[in-house]
Parts: sequence; structure tokens; C-alpha cells
Amino acid sequence: MKKTIGILGGMGPMATADLFRKIVSLTDAKSDSDHIRIYIDNNAAIPDRTTAILHGGADPLPAMTESLHKLLACGADCLLIPCNTAHYFLPPLQAQTQVPFLDITQVSAQACRDRFPGQTAAVLATTGTLSVGLYQHALTEAGVPFLLPDEREQKMLMEVIYDGVKAGRPPEVYEEGMRAVLTGLTSRGADYFILACTELPLAAEALALAEPTIDPTEELARAAIRFCGYRVK
Amino acid sequence: MKKTIGILGGMGPMATADLFRKIVSLTDAKSDSDHIRIYIDNNAAIPDRTTAILHGGADPLPAMTESLHKLLACGADCLLIPCNTAHYFLPPLQAQTQVPFLDITQVSAQACRDRFPGQTAAVLATTGTLSVGLYQHALTEAGVPFLLPDEREQKMLMEVIYDGVKAGRPPEVYEEGMRAVLTGLTSRGADYFILACTELPLAAEALALAEPTIDPTEELARAAIRFCGYRVK
Repeated sequence: MKKTIGILGGMGPMATADLFRKIVSLTDAKSDSDHIRIYIDNNAAIPDRTTAILHGGADPLPAMTESLHKLLACGADCLLIPCNTAHYFLPPLQAQTQVPFLDITQVSAQACRDRFPGQTAAVLATTGTLSVGLYQHALTEAGVPFLLPDEREQKMLMEVIYDGVKAGRPPEVYEEGMRAVLTGLTSRGADYFILACTELPLAAEALALAEPTIDPTEELARAAIRFCGYRVK
Repeated sequence: MKKTIGILGGMGPMATADLFRKIVSLTDAKSDSDHIRIYIDNNAAIPDRTTAILHGGADPLPAMTESLHKLLACGADCLLIPCNTAHYFLPPLQAQTQVPFLDITQVSAQACRDRFPGQTAAVLATTGTLSVGLYQHALTEAGVPFLLPDEREQKMLMEVIYDGVKAGRPPEVYEEGMRAVLTGLTSRGADYFILACTELPLAAEALALAEPTIDPTEELARAAIRFCGYRVK
């Protein structure tokens, strides 16, 4: 019996659409009915995760919990969150159900180890994700060497994410900032980049970046396809 | 109080992802929380609609009904089906709930009337959609002149849809067939094309078609955004 997916989405909506599209594109299917059943709650009312972690903003856990129970009621066999920062809240969500969450940080760290053995990753993520050590932990567990943006680069990266992609602005607006971050990290020894905020694969695609990258959204899609008993294209 | 959307999807999965992306892209939003809450059931197990209509294949209504009730349980305030052919089954679905379905054929016919007044549409749709007169009815109601592919063109169009887009094959495979259909219809007086199968906007984008078109998926997205009390970008 093949399994179904529940996507606890809305963080943000475009990243949720991106994950959905990547699952469909990467499933080895010849017709509609070869695809995976996917339930999505694009719950845009979930309070901002970085604001909650860094500045004591509204707690996103109640809204995430409401979405979780809707997805469980639909019959989801595994759960995905297309937001890296939101993974900080994964333990209290996982404690509410036996249905497994697939962890975007773990599948990405495994992909780093498999595809760039011995090379140094640069982690591009929100300040919220970095401050609670989500990727630092997963990469250390997987034995992947990594470095982080400095304070100035991190500020530019947050502008790319919030004032660029999440605000729906065109790539020209955030191109200079994004390129400055990549150049700085490369000069300090980065061999490749983990696009560890689900808005960043959208920015990378819009800017047609040539740098080697790991796309956690795509890695999460692959992991979910395999978990459900389907083949990756 | 702003409203939410339920998408009865999976017919096909890529068209469902396309509708989701178009709703998010077209919503006038400055941050994640300005977006619409959207529930999606990408139910890939729904039997093929054209096969059911033309060849007495498995009835898709039970599976569509199951999805409908999951979306209602989530709390959807309006319902969308990103499959033109499936609209044949809309009356028995609508009879089960007071929550309104927004009809893709009606919103598209209105868009034709508004954007191409007095001009002649060519309807590009599955043989199932055409055989039950879904667009012929909606266009006639809206006073829009139209013409249909001939038998040979319709056969080519079905190959574009089923052996091309739904099979996930590259645009080179179906480019010649698609262009032959457009050329034939233009020579008989078509001024613009209604991409009235949700796979066709994907084909048109992949082929970078220059012909004037109406994209029913996009019109459905706009209608849903307005229905929910949000602004179209």
C-alpha cells in the first residue's frame, strides 16, 4: 500500500507551491494516477518563525498544531514542513502524533555528505534558523564541514529573503545582495551553498545562479517520494 | 472575515500545482500572512474523466466526493477544480454542499468576453470536455463566438495532452502537433485560443507560444482571489 503526504504549509506560500511542484516533477510517473496523494494546508496565518524565535513574537505553535490535526484527519502518512526555521518547533509537533515528520535539515545534511564529500558547505538561512543551530546540529551529526555568513552578509541575506522573495519583488531588487553574500563566503573557503531557507531556491532559480548548491526543498521532495514507496525520476 | 479556498486536485497533479502557484503569484501580498489559506487534496487516484465520459471507464465521482468532504472538513469557503473535463461532474458535487464551486468554464467565458470582445475563440480542450459541451455552453451563454478543432486536429491535441504533458515528456515531443493545431484553427478564423485543458497552459509556457490566449487556470485563480476578499496583483 503506497503512502500519502501531508504538507504543513504557508511558511511561505510560494515555498509551499515550490515543494508541491518539486514532488510532482520528481515522481517517476507516466499518468495522473501514478502520482502521490498529497494533502496541503497552506496556512498563511502562522506567525513568522524568525520573529518568534529572536524577538518573542507571537508563538506559531498553536496555528501549526491546528494545521497538523487537519492533515492527520485527511489521512497523511508522513508530514513535511516547507520552512527550515519552522523546524525549531518540530519536537512539540512530533510529540502529538506517531505519523513521522521528515526533517528537512537531516535530509539536506545527508545530501551534502553524499554529493560533496569532504567539501565545505556555506549555510544560507534565516537568522532564526541559525540562532537555534538547526543546520549546525544536522551538519555536525552528518560530519559535514561548514561555515556561516558574517554579520554583514547575514543582514544582506535577510533582506534578500524578506524584502525580496517573500515580498514578491523581481530578482533585480535582490541580485546585488545575493551575489555579495556568495562572493564573501567563497573567499573564506565555501565550496558550495545550502539554500537553507525555502525562499532561497526560488531566488537562485530567478537569478540563474551558477554556484554549486544543495536545495533542501528538493531533497525533502526526494525523501518524501521514497518514503511513500514511489520512485524518484 | 476573509475566506479560504479548497482545491479538489490531482486531475492532473501538475495542473493542481500550477493553479496553486498562480493563486499565490497573483495575490497582492507583502508578506506570508497577507496570503490566502488554501486546502488542497491532490487525489491522484481519481479515475480519468475523459475515459469515463467517452468510454464508460471507472466513475470518478466517488473519489471526487471523498476529496470534497475532506476539503469541507478542513473548512474551505469555496471550491476549485483544476481540471476542465471534471466540471462535467460538478452538478452532483455541488448538490452535496452549500459551499460554492467556482466554475472554470464560466470564469473563462467571462474573461473572453471582456478581453477579446467580438473576436472568435478556438477552444482547445480534451475530447471529453468537448463531447459534453462544457465550453460550448458557457461561451454561448456569454455571447462569445467560437470554433472547435476538426477531427485530425483534435487527435493531435489529445496526443499533446496525454502523451506529452501528462506523461511528463519534454516540449520538443509535442511542439509540432501543438503548432499544427494552432495553424489550422487560425486559417479557419480563430483570433485567440482558450487553453481549456489545465495541461495546456503548461504546454504553452514550455513552448513560449506567441499566440493570444485565455488561460482558464489563471482566470480561476483571479476569480478565487476576489471571492475570498483579497486583491489581485
